Amino acid sequence: MSGLSRFLPILAWGASYDRPALTSDLVAAIIVTIMLIPQSLAYALLAGMPPQAGLYASIAPLLVYALFGTSRVLAVGPVAVVSLMTASAVGQIAETGTENYAVVAALLAFLSGLMLLAMGAVRLGALANFLSHPVISGFITASGLIIATSQVRHLFGVDAHGDTFPQLLASLAEHAGAINPATLMIGAVTIGFLLWTRSHLKPILRHHGWKARSADIAAKIAPVFAVAGTTLAVWAFNLIDQGVRVVGEIPSGIPPFTAPSMDFALWRELALSAALISVVGFVESVSVAQTLAAKRRQRIVPDQELIGLGASNVAASLSGGFPVTGGFARSVVNFDAGAETPAAGAFTAIGILLAALLLTPLLYYLPKATLGATIIVAVLSLVDFGALKRTFAYSRGDFSAMAATILFTLFFGVEVGILAGVGLSICLHLWRTSRPHCAIVGLVPKTQHFRNVKRHDVLTSPYVVSLRIDESLYFPNARFLEDKVAAIVADTPDIRHMILMCTAVNHIDASALESLETINRNLSDAGVTLHFSEVKGPVMDRLITIGFPEELSGRIFLSQFEALTTLDPDFPATGTIAEPLSAPHRIS
Amino acid sequence: MSGLSRFLPILAWGASYDRPALTSDLVAAIIVTIMLIPQSLAYALLAGMPPQAGLYASIAPLLVYALFGTSRVLAVGPVAVVSLMTASAVGQIAETGTENYAVVAALLAFLSGLMLLAMGAVRLGALANFLSHPVISGFITASGLIIATSQVRHLFGVDAHGDTFPQLLASLAEHAGAINPATLMIGAVTIGFLLWTRSHLKPILRHHGWKARSADIAAKIAPVFAVAGTTLAVWAFNLIDQGVRVVGEIPSGIPPFTAPSMDFALWRELALSAALISVVGFVESVSVAQTLAAKRRQRIVPDQELIGLGASNVAASLSGGFPVTGGFARSVVNFDAGAETPAAGAFTAIGILLAALLLTPLLYYLPKATLGATIIVAVLSLVDFGALKRTFAYSRGDFSAMAATILFTLFFGVEVGILAGVGLSICLHLWRTSRPHCAIVGLVPKTQHFRNVKRHDVLTSPYVVSLRIDESLYFPNARFLEDKVAAIVADTPDIRHMILMCTAVNHIDASALESLETINRNLSDAGVTLHFSEVKGPVMDRLITIGFPEELSGRIFLSQFEALTTLDPDFPATGTIAEPLSAPHRIS
Repeated sequence: MSGLSRFLPILAWGASYDRPALTSDLVAAIIVTIMLIPQSLAYALLAGMPPQAGLYASIAPLLVYALFGTSRVLAVGPVAVVSLMTASAVGQIAETGTENYAVVAALLAFLSGLMLLAMGAVRLGALANFLSHPVISGFITASGLIIATSQVRHLFGVDAHGDTFPQLLASLAEHAGAINPATLMIGAVTIGFLLWTRSHLKPILRHHGWKARSADIAAKIAPVFAVAGTTLAVWAFNLIDQGVRVVGEIPSGIPPFTAPSMDFALWRELALSAALISVVGFVESVSVAQTLAAKRRQRIVPDQELIGLGASNVAASLSGGFPVTGGFARSVVNFDAGAETPAAGAFTAIGILLAALLLTPLLYYLPKATLGATIIVAVLSLVDFGALKRTFAYSRGDFSAMAATILFTLFFGVEVGILAGVGLSICLHLWRTSRPHCAIVGLVPKTQHFRNVKRHDVLTSPYVVSLRIDESLYFPNARFLEDKVAAIVADTPDIRHMILMCTAVNHIDASALESLETINRNLSDAGVTLHFSEVKGPVMDRLITIGFPEELSGRIFLSQFEALTTLDPDFPATGTIAEPLSAPHRIS
Repeated sequence: MSGLSRFLPILAWGASYDRPALTSDLVAAIIVTIMLIPQSLAYALLAGMPPQAGLYASIAPLLVYALFGTSRVLAVGPVAVVSLMTASAVGQIAETGTENYAVVAALLAFLSGLMLLAMGAVRLGALANFLSHPVISGFITASGLIIATSQVRHLFGVDAHGDTFPQLLASLAEHAGAINPATLMIGAVTIGFLLWTRSHLKPILRHHGWKARSADIAAKIAPVFAVAGTTLAVWAFNLIDQGVRVVGEIPSGIPPFTAPSMDFALWRELALSAALISVVGFVESVSVAQTLAAKRRQRIVPDQELIGLGASNVAASLSGGFPVTGGFARSVVNFDAGAETPAAGAFTAIGILLAALLLTPLLYYLPKATLGATIIVAVLSLVDFGALKRTFAYSRGDFSAMAATILFTLFFGVEVGILAGVGLSICLHLWRTSRPHCAIVGLVPKTQHFRNVKRHDVLTSPYVVSLRIDESLYFPNARFLEDKVAAIVADTPDIRHMILMCTAVNHIDASALESLETINRNLSDAGVTLHFSEVKGPVMDRLITIGFPEELSGRIFLSQFEALTTLDPDFPATGTIAEPLSAPHRIS
C-alpha cells in the first residue's frame, strides 16, 4: 500500500471489486445482520443506553470503518467490555435513562474517537502494548464476571445495581425476595437453549448433513431464535401482565444527528475514561483483526487501525451511538460467512438501518430477560481462570499482575482495575531489571566460549575476573552493579583486572555511565584495572561520544577471548578449573 | 559484619576504639561543631523553623546515626534540599512561625523516619535507584536555584514569598522598592567575603605555609567569621534601628521532647511528601557516604543506612527538629578533619548541645542577611548547568528527563518536579525497549561469529533468516516483534527457516511468550519453520516449564553456528556475501 490508499484502504480493495466478491459479501452481511440485531440491543442495555442506540451504533461506525480500516472482515459496533466501561464511566456523571446520559455517552465516544485519531496521526499504536497480555486477559475475565452478574437482575426482573462485584452481589441478594417467576422462567429457558445450541446444535446439524461452516453459523445466530421465541411467548401469553419487562417501544427511523457536547469541564471529567476505553477497545479490536488476517495471510496496519477505529467512534458519537470497537463474535461470523472485503460491513450497516426503520415494532414484546440471558452466555466465554493457572506456572510476576487486575477490577471497578494492572506490570519489570542476573564466566576448555562458572567446568584466571551482566545498564540497576563489583573485589584478594562482558548490554544510560565512572575510579583506587569486552556497536558509539574509553583505566576489547588472553598472557596455563559453587567470588 | 553488629555497627568499631582514634574524633568534632552552628541556624530558617530547631536537629540525629549508621564519617542534620522540601510540604498545611508549623514539620520527620525504617526492614534500599542520575542532578540544580532565590529576601530585608521560581521572582520584584540598604550591605559583604574565601583563602594560607588539609578546613569554616563579624557589626553600630532583621532571642536549653501528632488525617496528607523526602534524603546521604567510604576503601551497607537515617529522623522528630539527612559539606569537613569513627558525630552532637545551652545569647544580633548569604553561597555550588550539556551529548532521552525535572521543579514545585522526572525516566525507558534494536545477522567468513549484515560483510543463506533481537522480550515490545517478523517474511519470498538469536534476551514474559506462540503459528501457516539459538539458561528453564519447545515448529539450538549449518547443510556453499543496505530484508 502506498500513497492515498495507505490512508483510505478502500482504494486498494475497491479497484478490484467484482461480482463473486459482491455475492460473498452480501451473504455474509445478511447473516451478520441477523446476528447483530439482538446483540446490539443487548449491549445497549448493558451500556445503560436505550435499545435503538445499539442499532445506531452498528450503522455509521460500520460504514466508516469500511472506508478507513485495514481489516477485511472486522465488524465494528457495541462490544461487551467497552459497553461495561461506558456504563461505568457515564454512570458516575449521569443518571441511566436520562437524556443527559445519552449525551455523555456520545461525548465519551467522541473523545475516544479523537484520541484514537490523534494516536493514529502520530503513529502511537505501540502505546497499546503497555496493556500486557496478563493484564488484558485478567481484565476481560473480571469484566466478564461483572457483566454476567450485572445481567442477573434482568433474569430476576429486579432493579439491582452496582459498579463493582461485591456491590452487585449485595444488591442482588437484597432484591432476591422480589424475583419475578415468569421473568426468571424466560431467562432460564433462554440460557438453557443458548447453552444447548452451543454444545449440541452443531453436531446435530452436521449429523443431518450440514456443512461444518453452515452448522457453525447456524449455532452462532441461534440467539435470534431465542429472541423470536420469547417475544412471541410474551405476546401470546400476555406475560407483561405477569410482570415480565419488555424492551417496549423503540422509535423507528434513521440514526439522528447528535452534535457532541462542548462542555469542556465534562471533556476533562471524561478524559481518563475515554483514554482507557480507547486503549482497551484498540487492543481488543487489533487482536481480533490480526487473528483473522493471519488466517488468510493478510496484513493489518495497527497505526491505520487507530484511524479506522477513531473515525468509527466519532461516527458513533455523531449518530446517536456510544463507544464502539471491533467485536470478536461478530467478526468471526463475518469471516466464517465468507466476507471478502469491508463492503460486507457496509452491507451489514444497510441491513441494520433497514431493521431500525422497519423491525422496531416487532421488538416491542422482546423481554429484557432474553437480552440479559444472551449477554450472560456470551460473556461467560470471556471468563478464563485457566489463564491464571497457566500464567502462574510460567511466571510469578506475570501471575501477580493478572491476579491484581482481576481483584482490583472486581472490587474497585474497571478503571482502577486496568490502571492497577498496568502500574504493577511496569513496577514488576523495573524491579526485575533492577536486580539483573550476573555471572562470573570462565573459558570452556578448547573453545573460545565463555560460560557461567556455576553452571559449567570452565577455566578462570587467578587475577582476572570476567563478569557477564545479563541486562541493559540503566538507572534502576546502576547502583546494583556498583555494589556487585565492590563485593567481588572485596572477596577476591588477588584480583588485578576486571572485565565486564557486555553481550547482553543493549543500552547504557546516563545513570549507569555515572556508575561505570565511579566503578572505574573506585577500582583504580583499589589497584584494579577495569576492562570491557564485546560491547555492541550502538552502545560503543555513545561511549566514544562522551570520551569514556579515554577515562577508562583499562581497555575495551572486541571479544572476551581476546581480553582474557591479552590480560593474562600465561592463560590458559595459569587457568584453573573453577570448582563450581565453592570459590568465594561465585555470585548468583 | 554479622549477627547483632550488622544492625548495630557501633559494636563493630566500638570494640577496637582507642586513644588515637579518640583524639582524631575529638579534633574533627570541634571543627565540625564550629561549622555546624551557623549552618544549622540557616537551614532552620530555610525550612521555615525557629533557629533553635536547627540546633536541635543536629543533636539527637547525630547521636542516633552514630549507633546505627554504617558510614564512619557521615554527618547527619538539616540539609539544604531536604529543608526546602520540608518548607514546601509544611507550608501547604501550616503558617510559618506558628506552633502548628513546628508540629507538622516534626510529624513529617517522624513519618519519613518510619518509612525509611520500613524500607530498611524489608531491604528496599534499591527503591532509591528509581531516582535516576539525570533526575536527581536536575532536581538538585533546580532546588539550588529556588533556594538561592528564596534567600534573596533576607538580603533585601523584605517579606517576599513563593513556592515556585516565578512566584519568588514576582514577589521579589514587587518588594524591590522596600529594600533595606543596611541589610543589603551586610548581605553583599558576606557573599563577597564567602566567595573570596572559597577562591582565595586556601591559596593564601598555603602560601603562608599551612598544610593543604588545614587550609581546606579553614576555608570551609569561614562562614563562622562572617557570622561573628556581622553579629558584632549589628551590635556595635546598633543596626537593628536601621531595619536590619536579626535572629533575636533563641531559647537556650536542651532539646525538648516533642511527641508526634496522632492526627491521622494529617498523616495521610503528609504521606507523599514524607515518601519523597525519604527517597531524596536517602539518595543524597548514601551518595555522600559512598563517595567518602570509597576513599578509605570502607563499605557502606545501603539497607542498613535506611535504618540509620530512619532512626535519625525519628530522633529529630522527637526532639524538636525537622527532617534531616546526611549532608555533603559537613561530612566532607568531618572526613578532612580526620574523623575516624561515628564517635566524632557523637562528640559533635555534644558540641552543638553545649552551643544550644550556652551560646544562644551571643546569636541575638546575628543578622538574617548573613544566614541568607551563607545559604546562597552554599547552594549555588549545587547548580550545575554543565551537567545538562554533558547529558545532552550522551543521550537525548536522559537529557529530556533532566530538563523536565528542572523545569517542573522550578515552575510547579519540588514534589511535582521529582515525580515528573521519575515518571518521564520510566516512560522513556519503556518507550526505548518497546522498539528494540534488531539485526539480521550473517556469518563472518572463516569464523563461527555472526554479525549484523548492515555493518559487516557476512555470509547469509538464501532460505534461512537469522534475526538477533537486542532486548529482553516483554510486553512493551511483544507485538513489535510480531510485526517485525511478519514484515521480514512478507519481504523474503524464499524463506524456509527463521532463527531467533537470543544472546541479548534476558527475559521472556507471558505477553512475549504469547507473541512467540502467535509468531510460531503464523510462520507455520506460511510454511516457515521457527527456530531459536543461544537461549540463556534461566530463560530456557522457563520455556521448558511451559512446554514451549514441544509447541515450536522448529528446534532450539545451543549455538547460532550449529543452527545455521544444521538447517542449511550446504552452507556456507550456498551462502552469499550479503550486500550491505540493499537487500530487501535488511532492517535497522
